[in-house]
Amino acid sequence: MAVVVMKFGGTSVADVDRIRNVARHVKREVDAGNKVAVIVSAMAGTTNQLVAWVNDASKSYDRREYDAVVATGEQITAGLLAIVLQSMGVKARSWQGWQIPIETSAAHGSARIANIDGKALRDRIETGEVAVVTGFQGIEPEHQRVATLGRGGSDTSAVAIAVAVNADVCDIYTDVDGVYTTDPRIVQKARRLPKISYEEMLEMASLGSKVLQTRSVELAMVHRVRLRVLSSFVAPDQMSPVRLDKLEDIGTIVTDEDEIVEQQVVSGIAYAKDEAKITILKVADKPGIAARIFGPLSDANINVDMIVQNVASDGKSTDMTFTVQSAELSRTLDVLKAAEKDIGHFEVQSSADVAKISVIGIGMRSHAGVAAGMFKALADKGINILAISTSEIKISVLIDAAYAELAVRTLHTMYGLDAV
Amino acid sequence: MAVVVMKFGGTSVADVDRIRNVARHVKREVDAGNKVAVIVSAMAGTTNQLVAWVNDASKSYDRREYDAVVATGEQITAGLLAIVLQSMGVKARSWQGWQIPIETSAAHGSARIANIDGKALRDRIETGEVAVVTGFQGIEPEHQRVATLGRGGSDTSAVAIAVAVNADVCDIYTDVDGVYTTDPRIVQKARRLPKISYEEMLEMASLGSKVLQTRSVELAMVHRVRLRVLSSFVAPDQMSPVRLDKLEDIGTIVTDEDEIVEQQVVSGIAYAKDEAKITILKVADKPGIAARIFGPLSDANINVDMIVQNVASDGKSTDMTFTVQSAELSRTLDVLKAAEKDIGHFEVQSSADVAKISVIGIGMRSHAGVAAGMFKALADKGINILAISTSEIKISVLIDAAYAELAVRTLHTMYGLDAV
Repeated sequence: MAVVVMKFGGTSVADVDRIRNVARHVKREVDAGNKVAVIVSAMAGTTNQLVAWVNDASKSYDRREYDAVVATGEQITAGLLAIVLQSMGVKARSWQGWQIPIETSAAHGSARIANIDGKALRDRIETGEVAVVTGFQGIEPEHQRVATLGRGGSDTSAVAIAVAVNADVCDIYTDVDGVYTTDPRIVQKARRLPKISYEEMLEMASLGSKVLQTRSVELAMVHRVRLRVLSSFVAPDQMSPVRLDKLEDIGTIVTDEDEIVEQQVVSGIAYAKDEAKITILKVADKPGIAARIFGPLSDANINVDMIVQNVASDGKSTDMTFTVQSAELSRTLDVLKAAEKDIGHFEVQSSADVAKISVIGIGMRSHAGVAAGMFKALADKGINILAISTSEIKISVLIDAAYAELAVRTLHTMYGLDAV
Repeated sequence: MAVVVMKFGGTSVADVDRIRNVARHVKREVDAGNKVAVIVSAMAGTTNQLVAWVNDASKSYDRREYDAVVATGEQITAGLLAIVLQSMGVKARSWQGWQIPIETSAAHGSARIANIDGKALRDRIETGEVAVVTGFQGIEPEHQRVATLGRGGSDTSAVAIAVAVNADVCDIYTDVDGVYTTDPRIVQKARRLPKISYEEMLEMASLGSKVLQTRSVELAMVHRVRLRVLSSFVAPDQMSPVRLDKLEDIGTIVTDEDEIVEQQVVSGIAYAKDEAKITILKVADKPGIAARIFGPLSDANINVDMIVQNVASDGKSTDMTFTVQSAELSRTLDVLKAAEKDIGHFEVQSSADVAKISVIGIGMRSHAGVAAGMFKALADKGINILAISTSEIKISVLIDAAYAELAVRTLHTMYGLDAV
């Protein structure tokens, strides 16, 4: 017997038939004697409709009201799934965020989960009743208003509930059957990874892999929740129920580094297109200059990704390169222009067509030459590197977007990730 | 300054443009210094979509889950209206039933409002902030589950909130501009009634007029809430803000009998088609027979309307005539057949094509001959009366459905209700 949290995203619950399919996955676990909490997203398309209505109501909406409207999407799914489960003879009830309660911060629209009292939920699932919990939302305790966690927040809800009910495993059902060495649409020889460390998954999530939301991985890492990525599109009766000694048989487990016996030097290649590169040339190299550049961008809610700073060729000033989402490029340039008085005179170069290619692996910590190998492999294909940024377990480079697929395939082969 | 409750139904909030129109009605009141609580229904069509999903999930659904799903409709409208109001510079926030809280009975799907603590709401609207409240729903306090009041329950929500905040008037905005002497689609000369008593409105509501829900009128009568029926389709700037000394200028006020100075003998003619008549002939005339007939129908959730009992021609047995909705006729006959062992032998006659025509007026109490006039007028047109039922302020007759419009027009003229 295991306590299992199962999370299903929007495409997995897109209509009542898909919800029935989800119910069969849940029933399989219940029939095997597992205790289950299910976290659901809104039916695919529903959230977009709700957001469109809010935007139509007013461009500058009150985020508390946005949350009240948008949170209804998951409430609908939770009720429908509870009904379908009951019709299959499975005891179930829906739980909205405020009913548990899942307490959040007051940052409506992108709230963080602050506290969950999981006692009531745990007691109920111990009786064999399935708890169907609305993902993506909670309640801000001071004003008792519904708060949402932001797009993709249901992954985070699932991990937080797994912590609250002390689950043995948190299974994230998606439209892919696991985490791959890279995007299988680009590299046919991409391999499913049976295991990956939290740190690697975190880098992959923040570098463009859409399998799991970054915050959910962080939370799982902090609380040592065993996360597993599975496909809801596999027929429910073609999968075995959860057995804790056989978790590795399907999907990908995200777990502690020391549970991974045979470490690869590089576990995966991530890439992000739709990036724009901005280089600010010859700004005065003095304390506080970075704050004067990035403060106004942060105030304008522009998400800056990679930042590289170099001493300029004249030795007295500095060059600063950073990336933003392509869609934000023109707004970024406007904000910089407006801040020129404060920053001092500078020149700008920008390009909307760059891609970020990242190589990730906890093995890098103990292996030298990983970066050198990457640079050489790209050079051999004539791919020019525009900027480099490294961390302990990843190396990212910016290149011309046209070469993105070639670079990913080249690196995938070079690091021995191709399936045999 | 007045405390005003405004209620808008589904067609009045059918899309974001219609919600903007509602916001202008609300702003007009706020600009005039009135304190406002708004009760909203789900956007037209939304509730039907939600109910369809529930029925698709399972025909025999858990009513608590039905409520969790269906209650989202009003939550969406409330959030959107709050956003639109704010964009017009009007302070506003949405309130869901559980946030106030509106406490209800545990009869999910058709719950009754048990208690509302209106203090917080009243304090907030006194500051000038508009309270946008979800109609049709509340919270069942013991299990903290969302409960809905059943179709049309938003009228009841509005009256209950009016009681809770001690409102001066409860304005129900609909797609008609008031209560008419009869359906204007049938009788062109139908007149809008500037005032009508609670008792008359109650009879009209239960006899087929769809302007107000019966329970809302009952609640208003008990608590002496001044109800007014208005059209949301009149341009917001073509209406004057609420002034308590000028409430009669538009719409129809539903109020105490003694506020109505000049009483008509008959205030209105109501009709209901889609009725089926069932006559049970020659059942044993003994105590308990009615219970044995209507008990099984009640157990089967069949709503029996008019009941007429007569001694049969043989003087020893009795005949019983009653009506149900046409759609329920065949199910009703099945239930009766199954109960035959208990009832004893009987013969049945039924007709799916009858109409109920009702004449309503508090003036009947002090005027003799109202019924006789009705019967004569119908006889003059050759309309046969199948059954008669009377109460203190109304007379209802069953006739062949084909004559319904003719009967209504005839009676409308005969009682002097035609507009001049």
